[in-house]
Amino acid sequence: MRAWPKGRLAYGGDYNPEQWPRSVWREDVDLMQRAGVSFVTLGVFSWSWLEPHKGEYDFGWLDEVMDLMAQADIAVDLATATASPPPWLTTAYPEMLPRTADGVVMWPGSRQSWCPSSPIFAEAARALVTQIAQRYHEHPALAMWHISNEYACHNLPCYCDTCAAAFRAWLRRRYGSVDALNDAWGTAFWSQRYTDLEQVLPPRRTPTFHNPTHVLDYHRFGSDTLLDHFLGEKAILADLSPGVPVTTNFMTMTQFRLLDYQSWAPHQDVVSTDHYRVATLPDPVAELSFQGAVTRGLANGAPWMLMEHSTSAVNWQPVNPAKAPGETLRDSLLHVANGADTIGFFQWRASRAGAEKWHSALVPHAGPESARFAEVCRLGAAAAALGELAGSRVEAQVAILLDTQALWAASGPAMPSTAVDYPEMAQRVHRALRDKGITADVVHPSADLSAYRLIVVPTLYLVTDDHAAAIAAAAAGGAQVLVTYFSGIVDEHDHVRLGGYPGAFRDLLGIVVEEFDPLLPGAGVDLSRGHGTIWSEWCRAVDAEVVATYTSGPCAGSAAMTRRTVGEGGAWYLGTMPDEATFDGLLNALVAAAGIAAALPGLPSGVEAIRRRAADGRSWVALVNHTDAPATMAVSGVDLLSGHATDGSLTLPRGGVAVVREG
Amino acid sequence: MRAWPKGRLAYGGDYNPEQWPRSVWREDVDLMQRAGVSFVTLGVFSWSWLEPHKGEYDFGWLDEVMDLMAQADIAVDLATATASPPPWLTTAYPEMLPRTADGVVMWPGSRQSWCPSSPIFAEAARALVTQIAQRYHEHPALAMWHISNEYACHNLPCYCDTCAAAFRAWLRRRYGSVDALNDAWGTAFWSQRYTDLEQVLPPRRTPTFHNPTHVLDYHRFGSDTLLDHFLGEKAILADLSPGVPVTTNFMTMTQFRLLDYQSWAPHQDVVSTDHYRVATLPDPVAELSFQGAVTRGLANGAPWMLMEHSTSAVNWQPVNPAKAPGETLRDSLLHVANGADTIGFFQWRASRAGAEKWHSALVPHAGPESARFAEVCRLGAAAAALGELAGSRVEAQVAILLDTQALWAASGPAMPSTAVDYPEMAQRVHRALRDKGITADVVHPSADLSAYRLIVVPTLYLVTDDHAAAIAAAAAGGAQVLVTYFSGIVDEHDHVRLGGYPGAFRDLLGIVVEEFDPLLPGAGVDLSRGHGTIWSEWCRAVDAEVVATYTSGPCAGSAAMTRRTVGEGGAWYLGTMPDEATFDGLLNALVAAAGIAAALPGLPSGVEAIRRRAADGRSWVALVNHTDAPATMAVSGVDLLSGHATDGSLTLPRGGVAVVREG
Amino acid sequence: MRAWPKGRLAYGGDYNPEQWPRSVWREDVDLMQRAGVSFVTLGVFSWSWLEPHKGEYDFGWLDEVMDLMAQADIAVDLATATASPPPWLTTAYPEMLPRTADGVVMWPGSRQSWCPSSPIFAEAARALVTQIAQRYHEHPALAMWHISNEYACHNLPCYCDTCAAAFRAWLRRRYGSVDALNDAWGTAFWSQRYTDLEQVLPPRRTPTFHNPTHVLDYHRFGSDTLLDHFLGEKAILADLSPGVPVTTNFMTMTQFRLLDYQSWAPHQDVVSTDHYRVATLPDPVAELSFQGAVTRGLANGAPWMLMEHSTSAVNWQPVNPAKAPGETLRDSLLHVANGADTIGFFQWRASRAGAEKWHSALVPHAGPESARFAEVCRLGAAAAALGELAGSRVEAQVAILLDTQALWAASGPAMPSTAVDYPEMAQRVHRALRDKGITADVVHPSADLSAYRLIVVPTLYLVTDDHAAAIAAAAAGGAQVLVTYFSGIVDEHDHVRLGGYPGAFRDLLGIVVEEFDPLLPGAGVDLSRGHGTIWSEWCRAVDAEVVATYTSGPCAGSAAMTRRTVGEGGAWYLGTMPDEATFDGLLNALVAAAGIAAALPGLPSGVEAIRRRAADGRSWVALVNHTDAPATMAVSGVDLLSGHATDGSLTLPRGGVAVVREG
Repeated sequence: MRAWPKGRLAYGGDYNPEQWPRSVWREDVDLMQRAGVSFVTLGVFSWSWLEPHKGEYDFGWLDEVMDLMAQADIAVDLATATASPPPWLTTAYPEMLPRTADGVVMWPGSRQSWCPSSPIFAEAARALVTQIAQRYHEHPALAMWHISNEYACHNLPCYCDTCAAAFRAWLRRRYGSVDALNDAWGTAFWSQRYTDLEQVLPPRRTPTFHNPTHVLDYHRFGSDTLLDHFLGEKAILADLSPGVPVTTNFMTMTQFRLLDYQSWAPHQDVVSTDHYRVATLPDPVAELSFQGAVTRGLANGAPWMLMEHSTSAVNWQPVNPAKAPGETLRDSLLHVANGADTIGFFQWRASRAGAEKWHSALVPHAGPESARFAEVCRLGAAAAALGELAGSRVEAQVAILLDTQALWAASGPAMPSTAVDYPEMAQRVHRALRDKGITADVVHPSADLSAYRLIVVPTLYLVTDDHAAAIAAAAAGGAQVLVTYFSGIVDEHDHVRLGGYPGAFRDLLGIVVEEFDPLLPGAGVDLSRGHGTIWSEWCRAVDAEVVATYTSGPCAGSAAMTRRTVGEGGAWYLGTMPDEATFDGLLNALVAAAGIAAALPGLPSGVEAIRRRAADGRSWVALVNHTDAPATMAVSGVDLLSGHATDGSLTLPRGGVAVVREG
Repeated sequence: MRAWPKGRLAYGGDYNPEQWPRSVWREDVDLMQRAGVSFVTLGVFSWSWLEPHKGEYDFGWLDEVMDLMAQADIAVDLATATASPPPWLTTAYPEMLPRTADGVVMWPGSRQSWCPSSPIFAEAARALVTQIAQRYHEHPALAMWHISNEYACHNLPCYCDTCAAAFRAWLRRRYGSVDALNDAWGTAFWSQRYTDLEQVLPPRRTPTFHNPTHVLDYHRFGSDTLLDHFLGEKAILADLSPGVPVTTNFMTMTQFRLLDYQSWAPHQDVVSTDHYRVATLPDPVAELSFQGAVTRGLANGAPWMLMEHSTSAVNWQPVNPAKAPGETLRDSLLHVANGADTIGFFQWRASRAGAEKWHSALVPHAGPESARFAEVCRLGAAAAALGELAGSRVEAQVAILLDTQALWAASGPAMPSTAVDYPEMAQRVHRALRDKGITADVVHPSADLSAYRLIVVPTLYLVTDDHAAAIAAAAAGGAQVLVTYFSGIVDEHDHVRLGGYPGAFRDLLGIVVEEFDPLLPGAGVDLSRGHGTIWSEWCRAVDAEVVATYTSGPCAGSAAMTRRTVGEGGAWYLGTMPDEATFDGLLNALVAAAGIAAALPGLPSGVEAIRRRAADGRSWVALVNHTDAPATMAVSGVDLLSGHATDGSLTLPRGGVAVVREG
Repeated sequence: MRAWPKGRLAYGGDYNPEQWPRSVWREDVDLMQRAGVSFVTLGVFSWSWLEPHKGEYDFGWLDEVMDLMAQADIAVDLATATASPPPWLTTAYPEMLPRTADGVVMWPGSRQSWCPSSPIFAEAARALVTQIAQRYHEHPALAMWHISNEYACHNLPCYCDTCAAAFRAWLRRRYGSVDALNDAWGTAFWSQRYTDLEQVLPPRRTPTFHNPTHVLDYHRFGSDTLLDHFLGEKAILADLSPGVPVTTNFMTMTQFRLLDYQSWAPHQDVVSTDHYRVATLPDPVAELSFQGAVTRGLANGAPWMLMEHSTSAVNWQPVNPAKAPGETLRDSLLHVANGADTIGFFQWRASRAGAEKWHSALVPHAGPESARFAEVCRLGAAAAALGELAGSRVEAQVAILLDTQALWAASGPAMPSTAVDYPEMAQRVHRALRDKGITADVVHPSADLSAYRLIVVPTLYLVTDDHAAAIAAAAAGGAQVLVTYFSGIVDEHDHVRLGGYPGAFRDLLGIVVEEFDPLLPGAGVDLSRGHGTIWSEWCRAVDAEVVATYTSGPCAGSAAMTRRTVGEGGAWYLGTMPDEATFDGLLNALVAAAGIAAALPGLPSGVEAIRRRAADGRSWVALVNHTDAPATMAVSGVDLLSGHATDGSLTLPRGGVAVVREG
């Protein structure tokens, strides 16, 4: 084993040499060195090569590649190779295949065809991990263990009989008795009351809407079950390969919602993630930065690894645009600005065949004599130039609260409005602050909120008493708190908090909402300031100042925005999705009340500025011009990318980036 | 047992006390009395409480609630509690679960997970009904039996093997021999000819279009099978609880099309129904009134029960808007105007948990100190004020014919145009007449048509010889008959009536249509008066006057509207879906020919006016202003809602309602 | 047996007398003679009549109908009646039913419910064919054998266990060893490496994207498997009914893509096809003509049979418009212009019942005294008037290359853009040339290209080395070759040709494309001439002249169109989907370079002109005016349809047609 690259930003990606003849490996090493690659992830999908028959191992080729990496001083993040089972395993044990809610088998032929509850899969996987750990623990290239890959990307939820039994065991641990489960799920309705836990099934296809708490618990069970897998492999590594850091790559992307990473993160020696832009999102680059903040929150503010992103197009969208020149650098830099110390890609060399051959790579189909590979080399140089940022942390005075369990509950069956998309409000706030040069953390409601001046609670439908109390305490402690509609509605069992919405925040906000009136697609309401969509409601200010009212629609006259002074702080409420200008005005008021300034004074709107600071006080500000024109900003120091001192002022072209060492 | 509330409109709804601790029940009774509630439906989904294990019954809590109701003088519509089976039953007998056409099991976890053909379910349900009937027949709160709930809402059609066998038995009864079935289904094509009835299957997933008569018969079989369930429970109640009226709640809503209520209605001691507005319908309030007429038709003109509607939002649409202040009264009144003597709601108290917690209720989550509950109390007072209408009947001179079997056939596989939606034309006619102040009944073709001056036959694709003859006889007897396109096309086996469309009405109308030319979405044709969409055709007037022709498109020159004098009456034809003004002109001509006047003279357009008349000659006219402005109308009497005499003229605000006792 | 009608265009269609009582048959014969019907196809779906029980045959009714046809001198294309199995067979052997990728059984109840790999079905079908062949070989009405019907219309792909085993056997024949399969499929990725061919499954439902070569091979396997069925029946006929030509009806329609007819065509004694217009296509009539060219290509230029089209509406679209007066003649004529010597329809008499009762026919529901039947009679007369064209061949100097295997590969999982629809570019080129009066053949890349002046290679994603070499040779031999984007990308295993796209055509075109940048729906790019959608890319002209560049978007400055001189010929490249005018300009340049003229000099744009020429030099030009106004053209000869000489100039009304015998 060796140490992970220190005092620099690690640069590299997934390397799948088994797709290529040996003759290509040597060229790979040369090109990696040309590009400044300092790490590779090996073996993610190699199970069928490493163990071609049950208990028969073939490590020869991997030995050779590991040696090549060691010779080239490239650190290896070695996969446990358990991401996808080999054909011989699924052929021998078809009962390990996952099933949909309709009972349809998810057959082999793509990847990740294994039931999360399967003891057969777990046993086979752990046997392989044991072999790999024993063989490579001492290898001079080994720097990190990479358990499995993108857990739950495709095999969750599974509804098979094995999962049914495992779910019942999980429920027994959670609830102890069938009566406790009946209470928690509200089975008094629709004749759902169980008299024995053995009667419980996964939420498979039913004639109509599922019990929502049943569905919520199945989400929890799924996440916990895969976490057990991770911990099982980790225990083997801890035993056989002590001292080598262990991670698994998360997928902090808006469209992935199946794991509660908050419960996974504490078990990572270093938090790592994959992020891919989705072309059809309203603002893919803002989403990227938001997810950087999400990942930073999971890492508790510590530096994290961007394990995978793409040099250019991906292959899994209906239409997959390329990245324009400069975008790969811009994207990579945004991750670094948000706390990443690693810039990783899937994958090193674009595949010739198979399902990912149209996914871009560091070495494109066109080969190294290409504009894309030249850009890859420039990015490697940039990673080197930014090395001094390694270990520093991002500064933020704003927290946006995000809780996957609340998301699951809010996405449940038979809700007031499917137009309420949980992350949408959070991302709108993050983006609006970004355009003001203000950095926001995205953290779990259980996080330490004491250092934040402004706390945004967007659509936190489900909230526990403890979390609600912590939020109220933060306001009392001097923070400005903004709560948006459909927050604080239910407890951890998805039971409505009675007596008027938003139950958990009613007292904090000094309001009572008697009834919701969700707006149909295309419909809107006028406000005393601006316009609202998606949501309206009958809201009374009981102990709060009314900031805006509805002036059209059935709720006309009700409060749409309110504000209440709470000790040193304030508690604000937003009852609709306002237009951009109105939203911006509200955020300006909040920022002013919280006494928060942009990262740089006088920063032009639309320029993202994020500051990282080292333990020794050194600081760097990363700058990205998201506007359509050149932008000039006041900043003193040296731009690490260009090597030029700014002389107090820096002008970035449209799309331009800089990382200025301040002082 | 006690009598159903007499001399008043019953007011109340579903009461599910098992969802709440005992401590809440007493408050419930107090609030019911405050609101004027006179009946509740109990036990609809209580099976898992009443029989927690096979053959072990727990009636204690229900005894207590029944006693509370008796003490409070609240009539109980007691459910047989068989709407949804308990988990222990489905766990023990998974073969009773329904299956989709794809063979997917509809598992428990929501409601109504039982195969309509399952003898296991039937036996278990009947055992429970027997217990409940024996226990409560003498109870002083019992006023009515409520069998099951919303039959077929979720468990029809089922395609399991049990249903396959039951379908074959049904076919044997219907056809007697395999040759008769072959003839009826037209199996001469596609090598479908059966040589033994045992070869017949449900219309499960097939490679391409099903045999349409096969599909039609499967609809009939499904409806008949559930009717048998109803009759099975009813027989037990007739035996054990004689003298107590029995009903099951229909779902007369546009989107529900699975039961032929025409065959169910004669078995109801009183017809009851549920109605919920769908926000995305073109005109949800017009649809409500139309369905009121549908229900009145099923009740053969007698008063009926609105068993369920909602005080505000439902929970099963993608987006569920609230009802604005006044809308609940307006909706309730429209049902009463259409003949309802009961105003019922789902449900008394909004659930905290479960799949229907976002369905509105009489007592909202916000509690009784809310605007919604205040409105509920006002509605209770209104129900009391309208008590004198109880038992009176609606007056109408127009009949619109509707036949579920024709709807099934017209919705079959491989039709000329899926843009032809069977009820659309019927609803357009109903609404246009409503805006003229003219009340239309909606009745089955087998109804007694002799009293109607105007009979509309909208898109009656399938019609039997008998029904066609009855319609022709009505015209000969002096009625004006309007037949619209794609009517009279096939017989009861879905066999085309040859020799030119519209076969069954060709002679009556004096036309021959040689070929249809359905219009693509967005396409239209010009008429000599107005414009048409959806449908056009090559129509020749053989013995009729041409009222309008097509003036564009391939059918230019063909007849689009015709009229023929028939004895004292007339037979009109409409071959396309005209624009609103053209449609209105046609209806004006029909109304004039039929000598029909609005319910009140000089009634402004857009004011709905429906008259109910008691056997003793007293009459009331219900008025709803659907326009966007105040409307003034000439009416003499006392508005029961306001208590004011009209002095000959009444002005209703936008959305306003009144019920005037005339004279 | 008798000969197929000679020296005339055969006219007729499917005749299904078993749907009608005997009394109708005599009327049928009379009406056929009135209409000029010269052939019928009998027995396509008659299995359940001919063999009502296993091994018990009932040919009486068919004998009678065959005798009627013989007496009326109507040739019979006799079906082997194996298109759809009878209920007794599927009841006895449910294992012969096909299954979807989700494992769902495709039950009987429609048609074609048989698994393509089922030995049970094959044995039963061959037993029936043997009986029929023995019984009717000598019959004086027999003129042709019609094997099965529309193979794969509904039962492909099937994913059942029988298919799984058959697929493995097919793979064993194709690859010999598991290692060869691993190489071809690129199983090195995602742990898909097989260690035994027995591990391979059909590409059933998987958690995510399938291996693309796996999918491609499953397409090949499916097509081959059904071809084996055809060949199995053909062998029986060759043995028992020598000398009678054998065909099966293809479905050359854009929406049908499941069989590689290129491998089927050589086994047809005469190529026959079905074609139905799809109302929602951008230009259904242009598509018709394109598919005529496709069929001609399959027939290797020889005359072919239009086995089925429709007199008017079909029944399987959501909305099924009729054909306007004249369209049936226009459509029929276009098929003849494209080389058809047979004008066939589905079906003779419109069904009263069953799934196709709303499909139009030669005798409509309205009966023979109808405008439709009068038109049918006129069409019969036209077929007679055009008889002298029989046996002549179409002249074309342009070839558009089409390869179903390339289509399959280009439609594979995880591609750069699903907006790239393989046939779209081919059809755009064909239509643009059509509007110039230029006839294009549509041929397989393996065709003899030597006679073509212009060769278009549209979106030929997959191309073998041999085919690429043939195309290059054609250019070197003097042809102008136009290659469009996403061509030449992969080899026959769907492996990317490395070193820069378009690999197989890089040298021919003298360009290198480093990366694709597919355009999102609604997005576009400006070109130095015109505008592009769907696709853009970074293209460098290495040894070619740049004709147009991108002037907006990330690829601005790259080449969008190029041209290279190759020996006597030229190699052109088009990298985007240009607007119509730009495309037209490019095609004009190509046509000019190739020295191709319209079929008639000075032909107005939008008039389709196709010349057929007999071996003896006689020629006919078929003309269709697709414009919205009358069009006048210079042509000398006699219009066979009107019987009039043109006197050098002919004016066709909008939609008008003519077939001029030249000279």
